[in-house]
Amino acid sequence: MTKDTVVTMKSTTGSVTGQAPEGRSNGLRETVARIASPSDANLARQVQERLDSLTKPRGSLGRLERIVIDYSLARGTADWSLPKKALFVFCADHGITAEGVSAYPQDVTHQMAENFVSGGAAINVLCRQYDIDPIIIDMGVNHTFDSGRGIVDRKIAFGTQNFLRCAAMTPEQAVESIETGISLARAAARLEYGLLAIGEMGIGNTTSGSAITALLTNQPVERVSGPGTGLNESQVGHKTEILRQALAARQVDREDPLAVLSGVGGFEIGGMCGFLLGAAAERVPVAVDGFIATSAALLAVRLAPSAKDYMFFSHRSAEPGHRAALDALDVEPLLALGMRLGEGTGAALAVGVIESALRLYKEMATFGSAEVSDKA
Amino acid sequence: MTKDTVVTMKSTTGSVTGQAPEGRSNGLRETVARIASPSDANLARQVQERLDSLTKPRGSLGRLERIVIDYSLARGTADWSLPKKALFVFCADHGITAEGVSAYPQDVTHQMAENFVSGGAAINVLCRQYDIDPIIIDMGVNHTFDSGRGIVDRKIAFGTQNFLRCAAMTPEQAVESIETGISLARAAARLEYGLLAIGEMGIGNTTSGSAITALLTNQPVERVSGPGTGLNESQVGHKTEILRQALAARQVDREDPLAVLSGVGGFEIGGMCGFLLGAAAERVPVAVDGFIATSAALLAVRLAPSAKDYMFFSHRSAEPGHRAALDALDVEPLLALGMRLGEGTGAALAVGVIESALRLYKEMATFGSAEVSDKA
Repeated sequence: MTKDTVVTMKSTTGSVTGQAPEGRSNGLRETVARIASPSDANLARQVQERLDSLTKPRGSLGRLERIVIDYSLARGTADWSLPKKALFVFCADHGITAEGVSAYPQDVTHQMAENFVSGGAAINVLCRQYDIDPIIIDMGVNHTFDSGRGIVDRKIAFGTQNFLRCAAMTPEQAVESIETGISLARAAARLEYGLLAIGEMGIGNTTSGSAITALLTNQPVERVSGPGTGLNESQVGHKTEILRQALAARQVDREDPLAVLSGVGGFEIGGMCGFLLGAAAERVPVAVDGFIATSAALLAVRLAPSAKDYMFFSHRSAEPGHRAALDALDVEPLLALGMRLGEGTGAALAVGVIESALRLYKEMATFGSAEVSDKA
Repeated sequence: MTKDTVVTMKSTTGSVTGQAPEGRSNGLRETVARIASPSDANLARQVQERLDSLTKPRGSLGRLERIVIDYSLARGTADWSLPKKALFVFCADHGITAEGVSAYPQDVTHQMAENFVSGGAAINVLCRQYDIDPIIIDMGVNHTFDSGRGIVDRKIAFGTQNFLRCAAMTPEQAVESIETGISLARAAARLEYGLLAIGEMGIGNTTSGSAITALLTNQPVERVSGPGTGLNESQVGHKTEILRQALAARQVDREDPLAVLSGVGGFEIGGMCGFLLGAAAERVPVAVDGFIATSAALLAVRLAPSAKDYMFFSHRSAEPGHRAALDALDVEPLLALGMRLGEGTGAALAVGVIESALRLYKEMATFGSAEVSDKA
């Protein structure tokens, strides 16, 4: 077992937040304006020609070939090096847990954040296996962590408000959570990570994910509500009823992603949304984990449609609302293993597959170099 | 890039073939008799209890939890160590290529075998990434390799006969190919590999795989014939017609797996069939690659139904006949990435996922050790 690499971004990003190095802003509006469509037919053809020169039947790597093309388009070049990888785990608490919507007590959020920096969680095991640096972000956990634990402090508040009673956060906090994510993505790009991933931890956050998904996909709540960490059937019924009441009470404008985030969102969801926008602006692809991360992707794509072209959708979660979110995004994830753990576990597995695709492109011999006869 | 580890089994297995170390035979009949059902309700419960003690919601690792249970049942213990891994690539040529059924010339089989030991093929890249030892076996390539190249010499003949004209091999060669595979699996077990994988290389072998699948699943040839390495529509039509004529000419008894293998099979397919039987007898699980490897699995399961419980089905190939074979086996592969390359490339990716499952089981903290609150 190799030692965990938990990268603290305090020193490297302390100078970033709130500043505008390289003359650019971390602001949401400016970041969205910088996200360009990566479409480039010449580059795509150049990558496909190299793929076709490798010692394999044309097209025989299936989706792995598409991964290589999408990665190259996102990077804007066919001459990338094998990327250094990081997984950002966004952690926050949720006021809606007061309504009994989760199988686990709220304390588990901070306990699991401690577990992440101790190296004992599922995501640590997978990050070790796939050589991914785990970076743990406190976006709004209801707990004061000891400094020096290695948890990156970006706390916006000690959890959201109970969105059955009032908006989950203020409009200012919604923007702050997104801009925090943007600054983290920019820091990751400057640290030369070439492949990123996102995951989350937050007791109660499938309720928030379901609310966002219901609003942005225009689906009834019963279609997007599910057992989360392990509710039984009657508990899911209760959660669905809370969601129905909350959405009726909030009357959120579903055409306004910021209103959706502040009305029913979470700080970790805002952070992931911003991270996806910031990474797209920096042209670094991100592997999106499961249901909650995909709800953040829905928000990001509503704010900047081209951001989708910088995302790899990792896996199809067992949580029922994930299907609606993926369908709305018109994407088919790489894996379908019935996982519903969060933390970025599905994204870490997808990073392994993405890296396989990238290594095949970089390391395989060509028909010429290996003296193998091409197709007759 | 790390240096390739191509393990030659000459020295380690030279003493094995044809002998009966530990008082046991490599014979087909004796091996089949030794394959026991791994079913053990107490062991399965013990593994599930450990899984449920780890810091994650119960069942949230989805199919990864089933992998851990199946692996433990196959090994007959919950106390295994993280396994050393090897991928055996079985190579052979096919007389049926004389009928123009492949997009590539027959020379590509030996050229690719050379590519495997030079480290430039797709499978080498994936074996490096996932720390799998690639072992390249000449089961019947139509070429004399230089000794010292690192290709394990188990050549039965310089390719099969053209099964449109006569049986692909003699009944004795069919048994010899299976027993060669058995001896290789036993050698792998003695070398303490705890997780194996199989793949193949053989120009023309999708035609053989289609014939075996048609016979063993009782499907019409047009349902199981496909483009292989890249035939166009009219070429697939020709291949299907050759298959139809060949099956009519051979009149193979589809209830007799050895008759199927000798009638329309390949030496690499017999080798993989034997390898799966030998590994099951040694209780070492094997990741089965795509369409051709699955046709070998069909043969093995007809010879010994319990052998299936020692197999992981890796991926759903783009080759259309794979569906019929997987349905007949009643299995759902781990991955579906549209790959159709062979060599064991899908199996190597699946080994990464299987290893993730095993590492999670071995390395995650428990609720107790991490001081995380369990479900309310």
